Amino acid sequence: MIDLYSERMNEVKPSAIRELLKLGADPDVISFGGGYPDPNLFPTDQLSLVYAHVLKEQGKQALQYTISEGLPALREKLVKRMERVGVTCGLDNLFLLQGSQQGLDLVAKMLLNPGDVVITENPTFLGALIAFNAYQPNYASVSMDEEGMDMDELESVLKANPRAKIIYTVPTFQNPTGVTMSLARRKRLVALANQYNVIILEDDPYREIRYEGEPLPSIKSLDTEGRVIHLGSFSKILSPGMRLGWVIAENELAEKLCLLKMAADTQNSTLNMYAANLFLERYDIDAHITRIQKVYRKKKQIMLDAFNTYLPKSVRYTNPQGGLFTWLTLPETVDTTKLMKERVLPEAKVAYVPGATFYPLRQETNHCRFNYSCMSEEKIVKGIAAFGNILQEYC
Amino acid sequence: MIDLYSERMNEVKPSAIRELLKLGADPDVISFGGGYPDPNLFPTDQLSLVYAHVLKEQGKQALQYTISEGLPALREKLVKRMERVGVTCGLDNLFLLQGSQQGLDLVAKMLLNPGDVVITENPTFLGALIAFNAYQPNYASVSMDEEGMDMDELESVLKANPRAKIIYTVPTFQNPTGVTMSLARRKRLVALANQYNVIILEDDPYREIRYEGEPLPSIKSLDTEGRVIHLGSFSKILSPGMRLGWVIAENELAEKLCLLKMAADTQNSTLNMYAANLFLERYDIDAHITRIQKVYRKKKQIMLDAFNTYLPKSVRYTNPQGGLFTWLTLPETVDTTKLMKERVLPEAKVAYVPGATFYPLRQETNHCRFNYSCMSEEKIVKGIAAFGNILQEYC
Repeated sequence: MIDLYSERMNEVKPSAIRELLKLGADPDVISFGGGYPDPNLFPTDQLSLVYAHVLKEQGKQALQYTISEGLPALREKLVKRMERVGVTCGLDNLFLLQGSQQGLDLVAKMLLNPGDVVITENPTFLGALIAFNAYQPNYASVSMDEEGMDMDELESVLKANPRAKIIYTVPTFQNPTGVTMSLARRKRLVALANQYNVIILEDDPYREIRYEGEPLPSIKSLDTEGRVIHLGSFSKILSPGMRLGWVIAENELAEKLCLLKMAADTQNSTLNMYAANLFLERYDIDAHITRIQKVYRKKKQIMLDAFNTYLPKSVRYTNPQGGLFTWLTLPETVDTTKLMKERVLPEAKVAYVPGATFYPLRQETNHCRFNYSCMSEEKIVKGIAAFGNILQEYC
Repeated sequence: MIDLYSERMNEVKPSAIRELLKLGADPDVISFGGGYPDPNLFPTDQLSLVYAHVLKEQGKQALQYTISEGLPALREKLVKRMERVGVTCGLDNLFLLQGSQQGLDLVAKMLLNPGDVVITENPTFLGALIAFNAYQPNYASVSMDEEGMDMDELESVLKANPRAKIIYTVPTFQNPTGVTMSLARRKRLVALANQYNVIILEDDPYREIRYEGEPLPSIKSLDTEGRVIHLGSFSKILSPGMRLGWVIAENELAEKLCLLKMAADTQNSTLNMYAANLFLERYDIDAHITRIQKVYRKKKQIMLDAFNTYLPKSVRYTNPQGGLFTWLTLPETVDTTKLMKERVLPEAKVAYVPGATFYPLRQETNHCRFNYSCMSEEKIVKGIAAFGNILQEYC
């Protein structure tokens, strides 16, 4: 064994649930575990035409290197799309990322010295913890209710943590809880970030998958001092397999992030950027998103109806207005990891993500995340019924 | 200005030549500056068929998320290709990267604490310095001759630097010099790495673009203790715009690198991996590479003939047996940055990369890197003639 590792590798460990989720990949298992979009909604025919056209007409450019910021024509379209939701920025403020996951890595890399504090929602997105961990932060977490982060608690946390640099939030249809931060809290969040001189990292991949309720302004649109960094993504509205996300940031922050992008992987796939650009030119992505919303609204309703029918009344769950996830709270004595390993996977052939993994500090064991976007309507009912049978006995 | 940056950002700065190279992007300029493959050699028709087939037959999988390691079928093919050149590894030892540039970032991230030492060839690949800088290393550099790194000097450097962790090398048709490390030196390199307990990072994107001389074993194939990390790439043999590179490493190193890959960007483009896999299945990539070799051999010869005709005899240059670059050494009084800015760009409308930027420590100012893969044969002759006219006067 060659032990030449950097200190940061002490924080980079295989996820405890990784093996468990591998079991969930068995095709006989009904998995509510992943965060996968419904593959039946991918516009494969349209993308097939788009790739053919790009390779035929622009193959030499589309297969070549390009600038690290990514294709200007695509960035122009994204600037315009963001304008529609109140985010005004220049072309230099927006560039492409290898999925918004890359934004989590680069923002942490730009800001964090070991021991600096990242404030997260509690629970928070696991992928963000995985990205941040490599920069050896300390975490502070803030409770949530049905309106998102508790802002009084956030203020206490900011007071108590002078080394806080980042407030990380998934404000809309949060992963894992499905909760959306209210407008009043978004405004207070910006005011607190201004007051305590920290960066808000707004991770917003689900915003357009709203199928109920009124859209809320993104936090970036409320930014008064250029301290909100916004991450967007094509993964939920077009295809995750194209790996196209984007970041929007104030000039100097954007410039530094782009230097880190260049250092990390030079650029996104030129071809995929040309294809996304032509897709936006040729097709109505908003109509496509409307189709996605309809399917997910129905699936969510089917899952919640099945919860209502099959789960014990002691189980609570969130009712999201969009996105891909609902969050279950079981009686406090239940350990959802143990439950899945010992009963739900082997007996019901059902997988979910145990909630403990989403907590940066003290892990609560009685929650789990259910995804409703990926499985068919039939499998949702069948899976929840089987899960419910076990729970009726277990709780 | 919001100054919350991490300490590492002191090392992350715009390249001094960036603005200069932007001028080189003017279409009226004949640029020998980039490291771009010849776009006329991209197999656009074949890739068009491949993408159409993948999207039609496997669209749901190809547009979806996949595992961080990347498509197993593609990795199997790469394992077999590497076997042909003496590198034996299992499927778990090889995974896909967002270009081999990402490997430079992840290996540095895995190994370097601030102040650890990276040993490089002198000069070395600029992109590697850009990737490493963010991890705040100190550099030590080792002189090269026509057989690559001077191994006696390397041994002195290893002795003098107990914090050395990585020896970074581009052993075959090096960027920027075009020099190839001899077999004897490759063997000595492995022995020294074993003796001084450091990792060899073998960055080998040009290996297959050999159009003269006999192939040499990769350093990874000479590895006796699992301490060589090998980076490969499709960028020069298929297309840089697909952003497909790979890493090969011993089990534990591979596992840790893959955790960092997951943290950094989740995965490569699923679609591009499916496409590369089908391309390898359907078409003869070796025949394709033979075509590339022929074109580049001819272009190199044209450039060297033009050097011989048009440059003053005081200018020396390397004669590479493959790859994309030749390296010019001008009289010591010449500053190639100043020369390009004041004379060559405005008067000759020619661009190259001034050599100073490739030195991690003391910058030598009288070199420059010329790329011969990207420009047409006519432009090579025209550009070198114009460059030579200025030099005849200047030197």
